[in-house]
Amino acid sequence: MYVGKKVTRVDAYDKVIGRTRYTDDLCDKSAYIARILHSTIANGRVLSIDTSEAEKIPGVVKVFTCFDLKEKHYFPTAGHPWSTDESHQDVADRLVLTDRVRFYGDDIAAVVAEDEVSAAQALRAIKVEYEEYPFVLDVLDAMKEDAPQLHEDYPNNILKHTTISKGNYEEAIKEPGLFKVEGWYSTPTVQHCHIENFICYAEMEGDRIKIVSSTQIPHIVRRVVGQALGVEWGKIRVIKPYIGGGFGNKQDVLYEPLCAWLSMQLHGHLIKLDVPREETFVSTRVRHAIKSHIISWVRPDGTFAARKLEAFSDQGAYASHGHSICAKGVGAFPQLYPCDNVEADAYTIFTNKSVAGAMRGYGIPQAMWAVECHTEDICAKLNMDPLEFRRKNLMPVGFKDAFSKNELYSDTFNQCLDKGIEVTDYLRKYKEYQNQTGDIRRGIGMAVFWYNTAVWPISLETSSCRMVLNQDGSLQVQLGETEIGQGADTAYSQMTADILGVPLEAVHVVSCQDTDVTPFGTGAYASRQTYTAGFSIRQTALLLKERILKYAHELTRMPEYNLDIIDGQIVRITDNRVLMSLGDLSTEALYSLSHSEHLSAESTAQIKSNAYSFGCTFAEVEVDIPMCKVKLLDIVNVHDAGTLINPALAEAQVHGGMSMGIGFGLSENLLFDPKTGRALNNNLLDYKLSTFMDHPRLRAYFVENAEPTSAFGTKSLGEPPTCSIAPAIRNAVYQATGVYVNDAPVNPHHLFRSMKEQHMFEEGGEANV
Amino acid sequence: MYVGKKVTRVDAYDKVIGRTRYTDDLCDKSAYIARILHSTIANGRVLSIDTSEAEKIPGVVKVFTCFDLKEKHYFPTAGHPWSTDESHQDVADRLVLTDRVRFYGDDIAAVVAEDEVSAAQALRAIKVEYEEYPFVLDVLDAMKEDAPQLHEDYPNNILKHTTISKGNYEEAIKEPGLFKVEGWYSTPTVQHCHIENFICYAEMEGDRIKIVSSTQIPHIVRRVVGQALGVEWGKIRVIKPYIGGGFGNKQDVLYEPLCAWLSMQLHGHLIKLDVPREETFVSTRVRHAIKSHIISWVRPDGTFAARKLEAFSDQGAYASHGHSICAKGVGAFPQLYPCDNVEADAYTIFTNKSVAGAMRGYGIPQAMWAVECHTEDICAKLNMDPLEFRRKNLMPVGFKDAFSKNELYSDTFNQCLDKGIEVTDYLRKYKEYQNQTGDIRRGIGMAVFWYNTAVWPISLETSSCRMVLNQDGSLQVQLGETEIGQGADTAYSQMTADILGVPLEAVHVVSCQDTDVTPFGTGAYASRQTYTAGFSIRQTALLLKERILKYAHELTRMPEYNLDIIDGQIVRITDNRVLMSLGDLSTEALYSLSHSEHLSAESTAQIKSNAYSFGCTFAEVEVDIPMCKVKLLDIVNVHDAGTLINPALAEAQVHGGMSMGIGFGLSENLLFDPKTGRALNNNLLDYKLSTFMDHPRLRAYFVENAEPTSAFGTKSLGEPPTCSIAPAIRNAVYQATGVYVNDAPVNPHHLFRSMKEQHMFEEGGEANV
Repeated sequence: MYVGKKVTRVDAYDKVIGRTRYTDDLCDKSAYIARILHSTIANGRVLSIDTSEAEKIPGVVKVFTCFDLKEKHYFPTAGHPWSTDESHQDVADRLVLTDRVRFYGDDIAAVVAEDEVSAAQALRAIKVEYEEYPFVLDVLDAMKEDAPQLHEDYPNNILKHTTISKGNYEEAIKEPGLFKVEGWYSTPTVQHCHIENFICYAEMEGDRIKIVSSTQIPHIVRRVVGQALGVEWGKIRVIKPYIGGGFGNKQDVLYEPLCAWLSMQLHGHLIKLDVPREETFVSTRVRHAIKSHIISWVRPDGTFAARKLEAFSDQGAYASHGHSICAKGVGAFPQLYPCDNVEADAYTIFTNKSVAGAMRGYGIPQAMWAVECHTEDICAKLNMDPLEFRRKNLMPVGFKDAFSKNELYSDTFNQCLDKGIEVTDYLRKYKEYQNQTGDIRRGIGMAVFWYNTAVWPISLETSSCRMVLNQDGSLQVQLGETEIGQGADTAYSQMTADILGVPLEAVHVVSCQDTDVTPFGTGAYASRQTYTAGFSIRQTALLLKERILKYAHELTRMPEYNLDIIDGQIVRITDNRVLMSLGDLSTEALYSLSHSEHLSAESTAQIKSNAYSFGCTFAEVEVDIPMCKVKLLDIVNVHDAGTLINPALAEAQVHGGMSMGIGFGLSENLLFDPKTGRALNNNLLDYKLSTFMDHPRLRAYFVENAEPTSAFGTKSLGEPPTCSIAPAIRNAVYQATGVYVNDAPVNPHHLFRSMKEQHMFEEGGEANV
Repeated sequence: MYVGKKVTRVDAYDKVIGRTRYTDDLCDKSAYIARILHSTIANGRVLSIDTSEAEKIPGVVKVFTCFDLKEKHYFPTAGHPWSTDESHQDVADRLVLTDRVRFYGDDIAAVVAEDEVSAAQALRAIKVEYEEYPFVLDVLDAMKEDAPQLHEDYPNNILKHTTISKGNYEEAIKEPGLFKVEGWYSTPTVQHCHIENFICYAEMEGDRIKIVSSTQIPHIVRRVVGQALGVEWGKIRVIKPYIGGGFGNKQDVLYEPLCAWLSMQLHGHLIKLDVPREETFVSTRVRHAIKSHIISWVRPDGTFAARKLEAFSDQGAYASHGHSICAKGVGAFPQLYPCDNVEADAYTIFTNKSVAGAMRGYGIPQAMWAVECHTEDICAKLNMDPLEFRRKNLMPVGFKDAFSKNELYSDTFNQCLDKGIEVTDYLRKYKEYQNQTGDIRRGIGMAVFWYNTAVWPISLETSSCRMVLNQDGSLQVQLGETEIGQGADTAYSQMTADILGVPLEAVHVVSCQDTDVTPFGTGAYASRQTYTAGFSIRQTALLLKERILKYAHELTRMPEYNLDIIDGQIVRITDNRVLMSLGDLSTEALYSLSHSEHLSAESTAQIKSNAYSFGCTFAEVEVDIPMCKVKLLDIVNVHDAGTLINPALAEAQVHGGMSMGIGFGLSENLLFDPKTGRALNNNLLDYKLSTFMDHPRLRAYFVENAEPTSAFGTKSLGEPPTCSIAPAIRNAVYQATGVYVNDAPVNPHHLFRSMKEQHMFEEGGEANV
């Protein structure tokens, strides 16, 4: 059995020695280079574009502007499965190029040149005349009556507003003796900062368009490009090679439509569109900044009487993944700490900023920031131990969500907390760090999270798989669920080997998706890969096994029920006798003069379940109060992701997510100039991405409660590690200093402001900045 | 219905505008360049190779010699399906590099360099010391007792000798009043001269080897490379892009094993091996030169009493396709003109020359040269009209071959002859050209051919197909049977569209084979493509249709027997009502929240039939006797290839084959220096390839008798057009001059020799060279 073992990544060797080919490596050198001209105003309309100087530059092939768009095919960009129910489809508000500019960085023209230098020169030589409109950058401002309107169909810039209501909030708060705890919590705009910027190339093959793209979602890109070009979807072919990270940014259809459109304008010539880092920050996608307002009414015994949440999610200029992110975050609210009387309002608001889309955690890091900061505030108010409070209020065993049908099958939360407490020596440290004085103080804090797995029942969950047997008994596995660096191919190999009964090295997962031949799958998102692909892998491997054993029966005349495949051998079950190798069987089947058959199997699994994933973070910090600087001393994540397919890869997943969570909690913040709407720090020098230098040893622990709904006992793990890091750090800082920072990240600017607002520098004067 | 229509080639546009990518276009520029050092002796052993000077050349990565081969994995190269019966496997006599040299041009070392120039310089700087053995270039010499032996296991250099015997030849020839007609007929060594020379590149992906190759037979290359490297076959991945012709040369595994081996020696680095034209001539494959000796005993009424054939096939230095070519040719002998008493002997003989392999016609052009020249000689001897003689003796309707079970179902031969007579005005011209005088004379001649289709029952015939439905009702089709320029993809598209009931433009055949994902098929050879692939296409399309209609039943609740697919619409049969488009059905199936399914189908068809293909050539020539020069005035081929899938492509196929036949008949001849064994004219200047300039308008006609065993009524057409051209020209020259040329080609050298030997210049003196 390979599931559960720390086998080496199947792509490790090639990646380590640098042999792995990425999109740019694959693009033929004859490609024209495309570069995008972005708007330099935050709101308005392009009146004219003068390309004459640009087109004179040697090497420039052609400049296309928003005015060259003959047919306007609006398209959505979210990497969601298509819905045949129109009301459930994503908002189609993008054009490949637009004259109606909605943020500083919008796409108004594109240069196609023979080389990078000419393209860059041409960009600078283009002259644009705008009609400028007032713009709005803040979500609360944007909802005001007199705010500039971004999209006609969305008054007050509200893309969507949903409510959750349970019990009777207004009645419940009348209960005598309740404590009211209220707070505003905000999260920053951050960017995915995958190593490989977005890149794609396109060319025509006959009357079809081929696009090779660094994407998480090749089959969805195919559909959206079809929509964007007004071309039948079957005429689009999308190929996804290895990619250098995506983290949700590449769960959006980014510039594939533009690149394909440019190729079509130039008789199908090969066009490469490689987006620089600075543009990736501004003009691809960012994480939704969300402002949350929570009021909790708590009894003296630490139980909830009533709760209220309002969340305002900053969508930026276009809908992209839209409301689903805020809705998911707000959806966590009544589930994580169940309460009889709840009101929740989720708003997603357009602003004249970079477009927010999917990012690892998909609303939950923002929600956990609000909820878990607020939980700590409640404990402070009640003077109650944060652990005790959580154990009392967290979702109990047996909890079942009526909508998703998710159920908490085991005492996961307590198990995770126990593990965290043990490995951090939390109880001793928590006590030790109470009531410190001096400039340098330590604190320990924690936070929990809740996550679900895949997207059913909100959207379709479907995964198709194909397996092709070779002469030597090895096989190829094809899936639409993509390897994006997380190790999916390795997990798939382990699953396949176990179900089919072959050695791991006999399984080769075809890593590169090609929508022409890869079975349909929606791609990598919603931490769905091992869960959803698990179903189709298991089903297809069983189908292939059935066909193999049927052929084995033909050759051996042993009844199929007395045959099995063990370690690549056809075995007679009754006495474990090896009858033949799978390779011999496959060779005979292929070349048989009496019955030749190329053994393969293909099937679709539709998944109509979902699963809760849980965990917590423990963080220990040292705060330099005069410097307003937080040093992370220790950080521990504990996860229950069900059965681990590969504990080493699981740990690596958690490490990556923790790093991203640390940046979100301590340093990252994409800023916009209030005067122009321009991004101010859209580069890796100024953005303060969390790196190796900012991390203590990242520690990951697991509690493995096999998920009963899952094909392999597994559930989501890709996104959860980012979810509870930031509030755990904030809560540790709170223990160290008594100062609560409600605006992530807890960087020196925010900590200084909080310290000042909370009068830290007035008493005792030990901090004197 | 599309079958039978002249639809435009699916790849026409891209090929015409130059967008189609071939192997060299696809190879990354980071590739190392490999070049092969060939032996400069015809027989012997390499004693030592000094690479020191070569390795000093800047840019040279490494030089590998035959002495670097640690393990010797002998491999076969013929593009035949594998046989699990060892006695039926091809001879494994090749190594990637050899120290035992058997022809001038054998592969003894390889240079790997960063660029072409360094590689070429390095080749020249290598010093080789040989031990030389005597060599033999002529097949009859090679069979002699004292001849140099090429391979230990084959005494007298006889690779194989087979006999056919029927009736009693010795008794039959005793019949009184018989005419004895005897002749020796020989064909030259010719080369395929495909536009794209052989090229491949290889690199490692993990522990697997990827090879992109200009081949006709990707799945067979995979197996042979596995054998050559001693690696499990599943570890090999072969990709076949568009190729610039193959004509059988690429039905051999050429340098894929060497290229892969070099990559393995260099840690999997990308290596490109592009074989120059001069080396392609000498060191890839050539057509077997065959010497045939025929004796016919004919009654005065023009019927056969007994016949005897001996054929000696020049294999060159290694076995390659070996005896199967000569065996096929000799197998035609007792079938084309059935006779009660027949003896036939086929010998395939090793000589120290370029290796002979498959080439369009696979032995039949050689056999038809011998048989149809000889038929004309019989007619001359009997003073009988060649047409009348053929009509009397050719295979009659109802003839059934006991071995292949092939049957002549219709009066094909007479129909083809009638058509040829009609379109050439043969009868009038034949009469007019009798008894000419003067320096310039005209003649008209003809010849017939017989061909079969695919390789059953000699070898396995199997074809697998996969079809994948898209959201818009279009689909991809994958097959192992390759497009090699002949238009196979277009024919497959037509077949699929008809069986599935969709518009032609909805079908996209995935042209590029990738053995990792392409269903197994043995590739392009034996004129098998439309015949064998037709079975798997029809079967798979029906399977997909069944699945589609099952889903349509689910959606419409109409019983499946009342549903059909017509022109891409789901139609209720009883009233022809369109219920939905196939696109709507497919979209619903894919995205259905109740039953999501990616509709596809895959199946293997094993073919246990074969089919006769027939036809004839009529040629009209003008001979300049003093110049010994033949000018072709008119040439007509008439074919019965059953139902034509695409008459335009069929005509193009015939044109190409006729051009190749003209070269074979009139000018092409690869010569070897008797003193050294070196090829003398291995370049396109000296070789005298038949070109456009040498052709009159090529005229192709068809008689369409649908083949009852075939999935689409079709049978072989790819190779037949080359088969009867040369003897028809020779027979026309004979009519014009009274001189018979028995050694093809009928070039001035041979014609002069024949004229001289047949005393033409002695009588009358009108020709005085």
